[in-house]
Amino acid sequence: MAKNEQFVSQIADIEADFPQWYTDVVIKTKLVDYGPVKGTMVIRPYGYAIWENIQREMDALFKAAGVENAYFPLLIPMSFMTKEAEHVEGFAPEVAVVTHAGGAKLEEPLVVRPTSETIIGHMMGKWVESWRDLPLRLNQWCNVMRWEKTTRPFLRTSEFLWQEGHSVYASAEEAERETENMLRLYENFAKDVLCMPVLTGKKTEKEKFAGAVATYGMEAMMHDGKSLQSGTTHYMGQNFAKAFNVQFTDRDGALKYGYTMSYGVSTRLIGAVIMTHGDQRGLVLPPPVAPVQAVIVPIAQKKEGVLAACRELEASLKEAGVRAAVDDSDNSPGWKFNEWEMKGVPVRIELGPRDIENGVMTVFRRDVCEKGELPLEDAPEAVKGLLAEIGANMYEKAAKRMQERVVTAETLEELLGGVNGGNFVKAGWCGCRECEDKVKTFAQATARVMADENTAQNCVVCGKPSVHTVFFARAY
Amino acid sequence: MAKNEQFVSQIADIEADFPQWYTDVVIKTKLVDYGPVKGTMVIRPYGYAIWENIQREMDALFKAAGVENAYFPLLIPMSFMTKEAEHVEGFAPEVAVVTHAGGAKLEEPLVVRPTSETIIGHMMGKWVESWRDLPLRLNQWCNVMRWEKTTRPFLRTSEFLWQEGHSVYASAEEAERETENMLRLYENFAKDVLCMPVLTGKKTEKEKFAGAVATYGMEAMMHDGKSLQSGTTHYMGQNFAKAFNVQFTDRDGALKYGYTMSYGVSTRLIGAVIMTHGDQRGLVLPPPVAPVQAVIVPIAQKKEGVLAACRELEASLKEAGVRAAVDDSDNSPGWKFNEWEMKGVPVRIELGPRDIENGVMTVFRRDVCEKGELPLEDAPEAVKGLLAEIGANMYEKAAKRMQERVVTAETLEELLGGVNGGNFVKAGWCGCRECEDKVKTFAQATARVMADENTAQNCVVCGKPSVHTVFFARAY
Repeated sequence: MAKNEQFVSQIADIEADFPQWYTDVVIKTKLVDYGPVKGTMVIRPYGYAIWENIQREMDALFKAAGVENAYFPLLIPMSFMTKEAEHVEGFAPEVAVVTHAGGAKLEEPLVVRPTSETIIGHMMGKWVESWRDLPLRLNQWCNVMRWEKTTRPFLRTSEFLWQEGHSVYASAEEAERETENMLRLYENFAKDVLCMPVLTGKKTEKEKFAGAVATYGMEAMMHDGKSLQSGTTHYMGQNFAKAFNVQFTDRDGALKYGYTMSYGVSTRLIGAVIMTHGDQRGLVLPPPVAPVQAVIVPIAQKKEGVLAACRELEASLKEAGVRAAVDDSDNSPGWKFNEWEMKGVPVRIELGPRDIENGVMTVFRRDVCEKGELPLEDAPEAVKGLLAEIGANMYEKAAKRMQERVVTAETLEELLGGVNGGNFVKAGWCGCRECEDKVKTFAQATARVMADENTAQNCVVCGKPSVHTVFFARAY
Repeated sequence: MAKNEQFVSQIADIEADFPQWYTDVVIKTKLVDYGPVKGTMVIRPYGYAIWENIQREMDALFKAAGVENAYFPLLIPMSFMTKEAEHVEGFAPEVAVVTHAGGAKLEEPLVVRPTSETIIGHMMGKWVESWRDLPLRLNQWCNVMRWEKTTRPFLRTSEFLWQEGHSVYASAEEAERETENMLRLYENFAKDVLCMPVLTGKKTEKEKFAGAVATYGMEAMMHDGKSLQSGTTHYMGQNFAKAFNVQFTDRDGALKYGYTMSYGVSTRLIGAVIMTHGDQRGLVLPPPVAPVQAVIVPIAQKKEGVLAACRELEASLKEAGVRAAVDDSDNSPGWKFNEWEMKGVPVRIELGPRDIENGVMTVFRRDVCEKGELPLEDAPEAVKGLLAEIGANMYEKAAKRMQERVVTAETLEELLGGVNGGNFVKAGWCGCRECEDKVKTFAQATARVMADENTAQNCVVCGKPSVHTVFFARAY
């Protein structure tokens, strides 16, 4: 780390210019950098470490659920994309196409996967023969590409990393149940691992996945009251099974089509974490995914015994499973405080000669930006307890914001006022496309998810009886 | 699993038709399947689980060495490939090119990364400013594409998964040392994790990486005496630093170019494991990477208490960190024995009413195909000990084969005889390209690595004084 570098934060005002705040934070904390090709991002070590933590936690949940990881090819024959009519309509405009390889033009162009339902459907068609082969529940962690006009690091990039789970079942009921189960898995993950409350529910026909019977989404509320879609699960019915001949001989001897579903979350989750929890000082990282959970800053570093005490504390924390680090660089303590606050490290421990003498450590909580003192003895248990408290507090704070910022509306004007004020707006909808489009043109808001129960009386646009109660919001 | 399916192994004879044996094994054990595009492979769960184990073990070594993971873009501007002259010459014929995206032709074609020296060099050029930024040691786990004419699952596929590490240093000496260190890391990994002895050494100019100053390789000997390159490390000097302006202000205030190196291993390692250890019954998996380390086969499964005892044993093994599983399918014990032997599971435990009564378990070792009996008490420790023994034995067996099958030669005829007999041939070489080419045309063998010491007297081709002693072999 640079010696005695003057710490200049220069993060834009989070209230006055949230988009610039976001850009400043992701660049200055070295989470990402821009790639040479417009719309691409380079995930730097600090950002990638967050992704690795997300992967590890989520992969454990999948394995516990009995899902197996596999790996399917990056390139998909162009002809596969057209086998499911809605699918190609939805994705064709966004794909990157390989036309030449090995020095020659390809007979058939190959598409870089925007998502893998087609190629996985094809392989499932090969592998599935009998009811005994079902269910088949696979997942892959990989990169996909979707050519985007407007891009922002983590939120929308032409290439991103994700997991895509794909399962095939013998019955619609089982596939629908898994679609719901994976939505719950995501919701619990968002809470337990990202300390992030989410709204879940079914998407409208307009918003659903191209080729699905039904899509379910998970929406998180960002600092500015806008929504970020943070995960989706899709029930495909027999659409892809029929397109790719995923058939099985059932117990009664009849040949039947399977029922498929899929589900995915991506590096966009990192963006969700940044914008849900961040503050003016920068990142505020949820302890379960923070690359560094506790940073130890030596005070009067050159004094005898200080560094040694810091390293001893670091070792004991690591042994207890805490991701701890000592910042022993030449920078001043003040510089270090600013740097690690900006980087969102949940706990900062300051250790100087006086602390050591008194058997205490000064502890700073990043979530509430408050200092306190804790005994050095039993530090590991104390720090673990503190990390858990911080995580719970971060969740409560975000849940409170979400609660306070969901308003109802009965007219378009009220809806507009609601989203202008940085809220989600719960309103009735007659179910027709024209009214849904009208909300878009009038208020630049989209239907995020439909509520489980239709409690509204009338459509917020046309006044006819409400068929679905919808959460509308401006979204990233 | 299918009920009472007649087990038909039909694996080709390993001695008479090793290529067909390999294909039969990878397909029938469901490690892989062929993708719809020629030359691509689909890694099925059993194969991917081996890769996950390899990744986990190797990533831990990298992290312990202080290397940080990051993620760089898949697509590289065509112009980047030409910045390092030798690099483009070596890789241009093999790349897949994206010419269209988002519905329009791209201004500049983009290459799917065959390897990432160029784009990582570009980003390093951005990030590195001062000697304090060095060394910068990064790695990524990702997919790459190299369009190949002949492909074989794991050994050579147009898309494969790998890790590529890239480091930049302030001095040639440091970069060269890291090049050597990573070769050692690979060698130890091959031994400890894959139970596979390897030959390491410097590659000839002809065989080195396109753009490197020097390449070091790790060669494993397969069952048939042919070589499989299993990993490489490259010292790039300032080639890529100059091509991509990776400069730093040194302590003396002068602006200097960095020195880079890179290193990589891929899913090819799975092929190495298959062909090094496999036998007529199928796979023989090294315990450290076997997805299932101990499979428990119930005998007289329907008898009271048998399944329960099996599950209890499974649980105790898992708690001790052993990857254990119970095969409680409807198939016969004989079918299960064949299946799990073919799948290369290191230990098979048979548990029936008599075993349980006597407090013992029948244990089958896959490496030597021998049965024995062990007490059920302290089963976890016994099984762990057995797995370690099996790993050590597998290594010894492969090391013995390698030792016995390295012969020397003083003439081309002797060399030909050596490789025809399934050996590596150690011989002298004058260092000239013509003689190296002649070994290729005459004996279809290539220089795998150069020995550390030149012990041979004369070049095996032309008789002039030997400058390098070389290990020649036929290779995959």
